Amino acid sequence: MSVEIPEITKKLLAAKQAKGISFADLEKAVGRDEVWIATVLYRQASASEDEASKILHALNLSQDLLPELTACPAKGLGPVVPTDPLVYRFYEIMQVYGMPIKEVVHEKFGDGIMSAIDFTLEVEKEEDPKGDRVKVIMNGKFLPYKKW
Amino acid sequence: MSVEIPEITKKLLAAKQAKGISFADLEKAVGRDEVWIATVLYRQASASEDEASKILHALNLSQDLLPELTACPAKGLGPVVPTDPLVYRFYEIMQVYGMPIKEVVHEKFGDGIMSAIDFTLEVEKEEDPKGDRVKVIMNGKFLPYKKW
Amino acid sequence: MSVEIPEITKKLLAAKQAKGISFADLEKAVGRDEVWIATVLYRQASASEDEASKILHALNLSQDLLPELTACPAKGLGPVVPTDPLVYRFYEIMQVYGMPIKEVVHEKFGDGIMSAIDFTLEVEKEEDPKGDRVKVIMNGKFLPYKKW
Amino acid sequence: MSVEIPEITKKLLAAKQAKGISFADLEKAVGRDEVWIATVLYRQASASEDEASKILHALNLSQDLLPELTACPAKGLGPVVPTDPLVYRFYEIMQVYGMPIKEVVHEKFGDGIMSAIDFTLEVEKEEDPKGDRVKVIMNGKFLPYKKW
Amino acid sequence: MSVEIPEITKKLLAAKQAKGISFADLEKAVGRDEVWIATVLYRQASASEDEASKILHALNLSQDLLPELTACPAKGLGPVVPTDPLVYRFYEIMQVYGMPIKEVVHEKFGDGIMSAIDFTLEVEKEEDPKGDRVKVIMNGKFLPYKKW
Amino acid sequence: MSVEIPEITKKLLAAKQAKGISFADLEKAVGRDEVWIATVLYRQASASEDEASKILHALNLSQDLLPELTACPAKGLGPVVPTDPLVYRFYEIMQVYGMPIKEVVHEKFGDGIMSAIDFTLEVEKEEDPKGDRVKVIMNGKFLPYKKW
Amino acid sequence: MSVEIPEITKKLLAAKQAKGISFADLEKAVGRDEVWIATVLYRQASASEDEASKILHALNLSQDLLPELTACPAKGLGPVVPTDPLVYRFYEIMQVYGMPIKEVVHEKFGDGIMSAIDFTLEVEKEEDPKGDRVKVIMNGKFLPYKKW
Amino acid sequence: MSVEIPEITKKLLAAKQAKGISFADLEKAVGRDEVWIATVLYRQASASEDEASKILHALNLSQDLLPELTACPAKGLGPVVPTDPLVYRFYEIMQVYGMPIKEVVHEKFGDGIMSAIDFTLEVEKEEDPKGDRVKVIMNGKFLPYKKW
Amino acid sequence: MSVEIPEITKKLLAAKQAKGISFADLEKAVGRDEVWIATVLYRQASASEDEASKILHALNLSQDLLPELTACPAKGLGPVVPTDPLVYRFYEIMQVYGMPIKEVVHEKFGDGIMSAIDFTLEVEKEEDPKGDRVKVIMNGKFLPYKKW
Amino acid sequence: MSVEIPEITKKLLAAKQAKGISFADLEKAVGRDEVWIATVLYRQASASEDEASKILHALNLSQDLLPELTACPAKGLGPVVPTDPLVYRFYEIMQVYGMPIKEVVHEKFGDGIMSAIDFTLEVEKEEDPKGDRVKVIMNGKFLPYKKW
Repeated sequence: MSVEIPEITKKLLAAKQAKGISFADLEKAVGRDEVWIATVLYRQASASEDEASKILHALNLSQDLLPELTACPAKGLGPVVPTDPLVYRFYEIMQVYGMPIKEVVHEKFGDGIMSAIDFTLEVEKEEDPKGDRVKVIMNGKFLPYKKW
Repeated sequence: MSVEIPEITKKLLAAKQAKGISFADLEKAVGRDEVWIATVLYRQASASEDEASKILHALNLSQDLLPELTACPAKGLGPVVPTDPLVYRFYEIMQVYGMPIKEVVHEKFGDGIMSAIDFTLEVEKEEDPKGDRVKVIMNGKFLPYKKW
Repeated sequence: MSVEIPEITKKLLAAKQAKGISFADLEKAVGRDEVWIATVLYRQASASEDEASKILHALNLSQDLLPELTACPAKGLGPVVPTDPLVYRFYEIMQVYGMPIKEVVHEKFGDGIMSAIDFTLEVEKEEDPKGDRVKVIMNGKFLPYKKW
Repeated sequence: MSVEIPEITKKLLAAKQAKGISFADLEKAVGRDEVWIATVLYRQASASEDEASKILHALNLSQDLLPELTACPAKGLGPVVPTDPLVYRFYEIMQVYGMPIKEVVHEKFGDGIMSAIDFTLEVEKEEDPKGDRVKVIMNGKFLPYKKW
Repeated sequence: MSVEIPEITKKLLAAKQAKGISFADLEKAVGRDEVWIATVLYRQASASEDEASKILHALNLSQDLLPELTACPAKGLGPVVPTDPLVYRFYEIMQVYGMPIKEVVHEKFGDGIMSAIDFTLEVEKEEDPKGDRVKVIMNGKFLPYKKW
Repeated sequence: MSVEIPEITKKLLAAKQAKGISFADLEKAVGRDEVWIATVLYRQASASEDEASKILHALNLSQDLLPELTACPAKGLGPVVPTDPLVYRFYEIMQVYGMPIKEVVHEKFGDGIMSAIDFTLEVEKEEDPKGDRVKVIMNGKFLPYKKW
Repeated sequence: MSVEIPEITKKLLAAKQAKGISFADLEKAVGRDEVWIATVLYRQASASEDEASKILHALNLSQDLLPELTACPAKGLGPVVPTDPLVYRFYEIMQVYGMPIKEVVHEKFGDGIMSAIDFTLEVEKEEDPKGDRVKVIMNGKFLPYKKW
Repeated sequence: MSVEIPEITKKLLAAKQAKGISFADLEKAVGRDEVWIATVLYRQASASEDEASKILHALNLSQDLLPELTACPAKGLGPVVPTDPLVYRFYEIMQVYGMPIKEVVHEKFGDGIMSAIDFTLEVEKEEDPKGDRVKVIMNGKFLPYKKW
Repeated sequence: MSVEIPEITKKLLAAKQAKGISFADLEKAVGRDEVWIATVLYRQASASEDEASKILHALNLSQDLLPELTACPAKGLGPVVPTDPLVYRFYEIMQVYGMPIKEVVHEKFGDGIMSAIDFTLEVEKEEDPKGDRVKVIMNGKFLPYKKW
Repeated sequence: MSVEIPEITKKLLAAKQAKGISFADLEKAVGRDEVWIATVLYRQASASEDEASKILHALNLSQDLLPELTACPAKGLGPVVPTDPLVYRFYEIMQVYGMPIKEVVHEKFGDGIMSAIDFTLEVEKEEDPKGDRVKVIMNGKFLPYKKW
């Protein structure tokens, strides 16, 4: 029911833990955002040869694994409804705020969607004395429906 | 298969269209963010008496509908997997980026989740000559798992 | 289990049958492809005021219905797995040819997708003495995955 | 949740990568379209002995694997709703355009379907300064419903 | 969960019962097999104007219903797994004998399928002192997979 | 998603292919219909010791496998909705013709079902200049509902 | 999610309550077991004209409803997994004891099934000082798998 | 899709077959009903140390397996809807007779359920010249809903 | 997808709101816990005639509704996975803590379950300066598995 | 269909059984509640290094396993609907009492939820001459919906 994590991901995460480096360190080493790098590690995004090489180097892993990071993966990790509470909250947000977001986007932009491909996602920690906050910033190109 | 929109929501949206006002106008009239107001209209959030009154007034609707906006709704509008392309993209983002976000949040905050209750969500239009962009900013309190 | 056709769609299709005009006739009257017009009739696409007006005029229907054709619809008509044999065949094509198409697209374009929004679809009849053939031409912009 | 790729497919794709040849090269070597060859590699189509032999030869693989390419496979690779964004788009197209296509096909051909068996599918790259486009051409025999 | 029978079907079956005629009688009146006629009544097949007219006449119903019998229907009546015991048995037969039939068909015909469109189905009563038997004869054109 | 074929079935089918004999040959060797034998091979039916012995002998396999063919299996091979196009067609036939068959059976026999246990199924090849046809003959005892 | 009770059933149960008679009373009036009569009331079994007439008479209802009780119903009332605790327990019994029952039946009878058609079911109250007990006695003909 | 039988169960059933003893023999050796013993073998019930010891002894198996029979198992063996015809019939009985049983139980006992825990189940063979019958006797304590 | 609230429940809740009384008030008027009374209002529990009469009286509703509160309802209100965030949290608790609870219960009590029928549930408000807390106390009889 | 228990959990539970210590013993050794410790063992909660070390020490296991207990796990163990009777009862409680609890919580606290993260859960044995009772006490912070 839960997520089946690919073998290569387990290997990469184990190496990251063994070396004791953070995603923020990888961000510096690779020159890409930490979320995107985590996405490569979970084999949901494909790296260029250069990016893959830097990731493997930073993790002290053999460059032989390079093709496993550059291949275009079959994407989609989760079960239909996620059971992990952290991931589920995003599903719940869609259940509760999905249609309201749709209304507001259509009013601002017309009929179309926010691209999930020409898209970036950042996770920030916002310190707050009443309890720190997670800030997730999604930014996708608006794609208007084509007519023909 | 698609979303079943509540009767009260249809009535509110029809009044909004008839009056020709936008969610941004409602934001000004009510003093709440437009996404939150759209959420009330879809009966996924409950308004205070004052907020409900302002919304109904702005929409030229009878104050008799007030209890329908203040009641605590049974939430969750969508089908298990959304079919609407705009809403689906958020589901897809979770399929592709869900586990990577989880890794990064755990690294930054420890074991816990981003609250979807102590939570705000804004939709912004970012103008861009290569095509305008939709910016969605989620901001939720980090809740660490309690031990006992 | 089968498709739930919206009331407005039934009204439009009934008017089309009563007037005895074809989608090809509507294509001429509106200046848009017949498949796109059928998509508007099924409330899966939103027309401009001008397009909606022409459609209603061609169908001898009141212009009062205009807002129903210009609103941005909640999209997605089918059950999870379609039961109608004609529609199912497209689902089956995806089951059988989905991954092979993915391989070929990635080889030709890199990691990314064919847009279903910046997208057109045409249906042609190819006459053939051994049995006429249905030709479906899909044309979508290639969207490369953004890195950040 | 994602696609379970058969062992033989992994072996064939690894050999293809190792040899550094493209599906277009295989198209020339085998005399069949690249999409169909990818379909054989994914074990969703069965090759003749001659075709299988040419494929294995082109991939520098042992002819011992020949029976694995000529056997009639149990077809259907995907999960019920595909999670891979590229494959999902075809599912979404069916959700949005399925019933409109059905209307247009019935108007042009009468009651029946487009065959998914007496069927070909081509993927073309259409260069475009505003962004290259993916063109997918499906061509299936129209099969009218038999009455008896 | 069970089958949702269309309004027009209920009207046709009620008329059939009121008039007290059997499907065998309709077979004689229309010149089509009784199973096919039952399929038209359930709006899973489309009749010609002549066939529809004969059916309505035989059932003492107004010819105004004619367009409801000639339209190409959205097909597929059942729930995903049928609950009616009679219909379920066919589902069970597929669960138990599906793959064996596939093996035998491939051995006799090669890779391809039995068409469900260029297809007839007859139900016969076979009298037997140990208990009468139901005989269902399916007959579909073999469609070999096209290569290209 | 697709069918999980039991290990013993793979072994039996491999032996059958290695020996180069057909189901028709096995029919002669065992004195049972080829479809039933294929059903035993797929472990959806249990053979007697004598039948199992003949099958293993015909396939040049050790008699040690005998208990694997005589045991009463846990039956049901397919996914909920079959993805293999050949098997799916039978599912589709049930979706389209299920209720009509039910009507005709009830009219001919009363309330009850066609047994799927006291049941035989034959597959025949009907040669036809316009394309050979697959004939599937199902024959099951009618079981009337008992009242008490 | 829960059971959708047919209109006719609601009418029959309301009449039963209004008249203040029990299923045991109906058993005496009709000469059939109370469970079977309840099954007719829920339109899961079809009565003869005589039985239907007696039921309607006992419930003070018009004989005009007779055809609604004699028609062969589309059977199967429940959701896929029952939510009602009383009904669910039978589902649970099958989850826990299903395979053990199968083993014991096969050992006692060979390969085959207990018929659910040539079948009776009685519910008895067994008084017990430690708490009364529900006794459910199912009795179905054993049907051995036919070979051919 | 079918049942996944635990490794320990396979081992126990193989030993039972090798030793050539029946569940009736085990009933005598253990002093418990054969269905309950089969339930232990399928790891859906937990035996006491004494019962487990007797079972292993009767099956000529090492007492080392004892903890595997005494542990409280995670119960529930089947798929959501069983595909095995013998097990499915019990599911069907619930679909057809579930609500009628509920009516009769409530009339006889009030609001509450038949316990599936304080519960016994016996399988008997009833010899009958027209075909032997399977008798399944379920006996569960009635549990009235508590009010508070 | 969300909960379908029965008509009678809507009527009762509207009367409760109109009269402006709380569940705590009803608790006093009826002499039963507020959660149990809310359960009767949602038609998931059946009241005695006396309890029903008191509830209707307290809500200023006609005693004619009495039979609707005393009937044994078909229980189970929710969708398979609840979408309402408050209700979902209980589902999540079961996903995360279900097996650990099972381990601890088995260790304390042996093999068996906590009854959900001989069961009470209370909701308390625990005031806390860091934020009030919801306390849910479930109390069910332990039912040991019967052996036979 | 049932729960897939992680390898590390099996190892920990086997060690616990081998050492013959209870969860109550672990509670004393670790200084955390037994339910929480069982949750760590099932890898649904993450321990601190100190807690993990104490657990491993108490179970006579190598400290090398420490990282497996401190990592933030992907949570959610069960199938969509639990099949184990003990766990299912909690699901049933939610089906029956979910909406009533929601009503009472909203009345006492306003719109919001009981946190499942800032949350504790205790299992107690309540001795009772009529049969011991299981007491489950859930205690979660009330989180009011934020407005913005």
